Amino acid sequence: MSYAAPIQDMRFALEACADVWRLRERYPELDADLLAAILEGAGALAAETLAPINRSGDRAGVRFEGDVVRAAPGFREAYEAFKAGGWQGLAADPAYGGQGLPRAVALAVMETTHSANMSFGLLPMLTLGAIEAIEQHGTPDQKRLYLEKLVSGEWTGTMNLTEPQAGSDLGALTTKAIPQADGAYAITGQKIFITWGEHDLAPNIIHLVLARIEGAPAGSKGISMFIVPKVRDADGARNAVRCIGVEEKMGIHASPTCTMAYEGAQGWLIGEENRGLHAMFTMMNAARLNVGMEGVAVAEAAYQKALAYARERKQGGGLIVQHPDVKRMLTTMRAKIQAGRAICYACAVAADAGDKAMEDLLTPLAKGWGTDLGVECASIGVQVHGGMGFVEEGGAAQYYRDARITPIYEGTNGIQAIDLYGRKLLGDRGEAMRRLIGEARGAAEALGGAVGDRLAAAAAVLEAATDYMLAAERDDALAGAAAYLVLAGDVAGASLIAQGLARRADAEQRALLGFYAQTVLTRADARLAEVKLGAAALGI
Amino acid sequence: MSYAAPIQDMRFALEACADVWRLRERYPELDADLLAAILEGAGALAAETLAPINRSGDRAGVRFEGDVVRAAPGFREAYEAFKAGGWQGLAADPAYGGQGLPRAVALAVMETTHSANMSFGLLPMLTLGAIEAIEQHGTPDQKRLYLEKLVSGEWTGTMNLTEPQAGSDLGALTTKAIPQADGAYAITGQKIFITWGEHDLAPNIIHLVLARIEGAPAGSKGISMFIVPKVRDADGARNAVRCIGVEEKMGIHASPTCTMAYEGAQGWLIGEENRGLHAMFTMMNAARLNVGMEGVAVAEAAYQKALAYARERKQGGGLIVQHPDVKRMLTTMRAKIQAGRAICYACAVAADAGDKAMEDLLTPLAKGWGTDLGVECASIGVQVHGGMGFVEEGGAAQYYRDARITPIYEGTNGIQAIDLYGRKLLGDRGEAMRRLIGEARGAAEALGGAVGDRLAAAAAVLEAATDYMLAAERDDALAGAAAYLVLAGDVAGASLIAQGLARRADAEQRALLGFYAQTVLTRADARLAEVKLGAAALGI
Repeated sequence: MSYAAPIQDMRFALEACADVWRLRERYPELDADLLAAILEGAGALAAETLAPINRSGDRAGVRFEGDVVRAAPGFREAYEAFKAGGWQGLAADPAYGGQGLPRAVALAVMETTHSANMSFGLLPMLTLGAIEAIEQHGTPDQKRLYLEKLVSGEWTGTMNLTEPQAGSDLGALTTKAIPQADGAYAITGQKIFITWGEHDLAPNIIHLVLARIEGAPAGSKGISMFIVPKVRDADGARNAVRCIGVEEKMGIHASPTCTMAYEGAQGWLIGEENRGLHAMFTMMNAARLNVGMEGVAVAEAAYQKALAYARERKQGGGLIVQHPDVKRMLTTMRAKIQAGRAICYACAVAADAGDKAMEDLLTPLAKGWGTDLGVECASIGVQVHGGMGFVEEGGAAQYYRDARITPIYEGTNGIQAIDLYGRKLLGDRGEAMRRLIGEARGAAEALGGAVGDRLAAAAAVLEAATDYMLAAERDDALAGAAAYLVLAGDVAGASLIAQGLARRADAEQRALLGFYAQTVLTRADARLAEVKLGAAALGI
Repeated sequence: MSYAAPIQDMRFALEACADVWRLRERYPELDADLLAAILEGAGALAAETLAPINRSGDRAGVRFEGDVVRAAPGFREAYEAFKAGGWQGLAADPAYGGQGLPRAVALAVMETTHSANMSFGLLPMLTLGAIEAIEQHGTPDQKRLYLEKLVSGEWTGTMNLTEPQAGSDLGALTTKAIPQADGAYAITGQKIFITWGEHDLAPNIIHLVLARIEGAPAGSKGISMFIVPKVRDADGARNAVRCIGVEEKMGIHASPTCTMAYEGAQGWLIGEENRGLHAMFTMMNAARLNVGMEGVAVAEAAYQKALAYARERKQGGGLIVQHPDVKRMLTTMRAKIQAGRAICYACAVAADAGDKAMEDLLTPLAKGWGTDLGVECASIGVQVHGGMGFVEEGGAAQYYRDARITPIYEGTNGIQAIDLYGRKLLGDRGEAMRRLIGEARGAAEALGGAVGDRLAAAAAVLEAATDYMLAAERDDALAGAAAYLVLAGDVAGASLIAQGLARRADAEQRALLGFYAQTVLTRADARLAEVKLGAAALGI
């Protein structure tokens, strides 16, 4: 088995669909040659170093001994190679050793990492979140202390949000922070589901922790964010934070999911007091996009594996790839993956371009639609394999197990739907969504033909759904929010591919869009019916 | 955690939807009291004996030592209880110790078994297949030798079809049968994916094995079926068949999936020479329906678990069951499960009633639609649990892993779609399907209102799809066959619920049908577009 970065599809999505070249003024150093070199280098690392330890990492898992977590065999060498390549700092500030490239390019690189080895990819993904939080909210001292080592990958980072009683509802968290004479805080509490919260691949781990300063208001307005290094800066002593448990999970076995105990650990306030949720949201938005990308990435890996199997498995006197139903499954995967990829890249390009409204709108689409796609494609991948799909040796099963976390973490897809409705749609009274719809209409017109007509019709349905959501009572809107997110993702994906075709003719991508139009966009009316379901229909 | 048989939903599906009482003439001993007693007894066994060893069986798995397979802890006691209750023989011939009840009643009982413990349920399910094959194809001597012990559950049965090079394509199998002087055959070959092929819960295992008699024609017309007992009848010696491997699977860990080596094992021809596929099909049809039921059953278990979790999990100041999106997920599960249950029960009642055309038509719908449902609902169940869904301790993950085999075995769902088109639809030029459509129209009219209109509209779409399938070129039809199966299942499920409402008023079932109409039947037009995709669209 092998993974190869789908460079052509990636470049079509990044250059033609997401129009990365409109960033040229902001990032003059990026050109086509550099982009190609980066994607090929990342693809090579993914194929040669990360993919070969994906299955072995799944089997071995991590080992939890005392309060030490040992990574799976081969992960140390792989992480050294990742660091040595400078991949962690691709989009980071050059002042701290980063390369200052667009986040969209870093995201495309992360796609290859996640495809090759989702467990591994979580480590740099979390570090990236810590880098962005400190870049945006840290004091000059904090930046000086932490950024360089995070950007180089020497140290890694984590996000500590969830507590046993506070999952999606962060306002309920109870971890305490007590001010100390030296300006630090003593952090006490327990955090669960902390990805790569403890491990032996780096000498220090920088935890970004949400906690309440003594006397802070109740609820979400009394939460602050703290930097809690595993090894204390001043004296190099081990901080009072340790891993007290590692979850036994269905998938991503090589990624330790830790329960972290803070017992008066030394922490430093980052950002303003009681504005921790605000600071965390900047991390979370990037993380959500990254998780959406993870969904697309695992879908791509599942697709490649299924395609390879179908091309070598004989049955009924031929290869199963010749069977119409197998072709249908493979084409479904490929067409939807390309749409999901375009949404994720477009979200990142919007962020790079400073188009905050579009970044905000596309983030829940990337996360929700991209991760639903991951689960769907991983399941189809199992199906293509037949009985071998259910046997662990076949490898398809791992994608099915791994992918299942993506619609859950960084805010369940239900939370994404609420975010799309409550923050994004109501936040600007639908302005950004109308812009997206307008772009879809424009792309449909430029495309023309039956496929253009289907896209235009779906865009009109999305507009009707948007009008409904804006006018509906809150509970009715929430009953339809998940379907609304799916509909918006369906249209956005097709629109971006159509926009890509306007920028670059490509017969294969056009054919895939035709397939997508007939199998996805045709559901628009049905999605609208689900959007309009209403709260009363749920009272059964 | 706990499973409770959903007796009300089951009885509505069996009595009102599937109209089990039209069997009264054929089965005069069955009345409402007996039915209630059976379902409650089965439900109690499932809840008290089988469900408690579901998670422990998943963790422990089976142990393969030498050529011995040891069942997971507790399975012996559970199987003893199952035998003692007489559950294996519910629908078997009273001449051999069976109770001669309708297969539909036995199927409903198996639903509770599968819901509580899918790994366990496979054992009686396979035995049932062996019973039916011997009942239908065995000689009087064979019946006398094997049936009583299989019907009592003292011995168990298996189906041996698949070989490494012959999965869906049985014509490619190579296991050899060489005639012996005593009328027996020496069977030599290797079979894979043999469910409960070896275990320590019964003193004898009756293997039904497909093999080629020396000199038989090539392909599917040279295959015969043999009875190969693990322990030889005549001398009580161990036969030359043994387990040489047990698969490491993603789910159903407590059900051994064996590789069986036949090395000149003594076998007895059952049915006619070279008519083995024909004989095996009678087993396979029943097995397919049972697997469809398994899909519905695991969906029901996932639903109950998710509902219980949502009712106890607090978040944001309330229980998550109050959140519209969680309600939507739970209602989706419940509404579709009831439709899938009705399809499975109706298929069994058709079989009991001797309505072969409807049994044949509904079998691929039960299998394909019911098992897609199992995977879908198990995935939603994980989602309702949030992070706890991905942690094995939560229990939802097991359903997600277990369910994934159901769309694969007993003929992948792609094979079911081909069967629906090639054998069923072309077999009678759409006659049975038009009957199903007519029933849907009648039920829609009787129901009336917006929901009746939606059902009538969907029935009309199914008719258009049927016309298309009958007229299309074979490759075009095959490209749309999977979508056609889904559309037919969507309509059949709603039609059966509507027929049930005509027989028995039930406000809750009516509300569920309303939800189903708005979230499933509204997709009919989109499904038709997928049906009409055409082979050319797949050439990407």
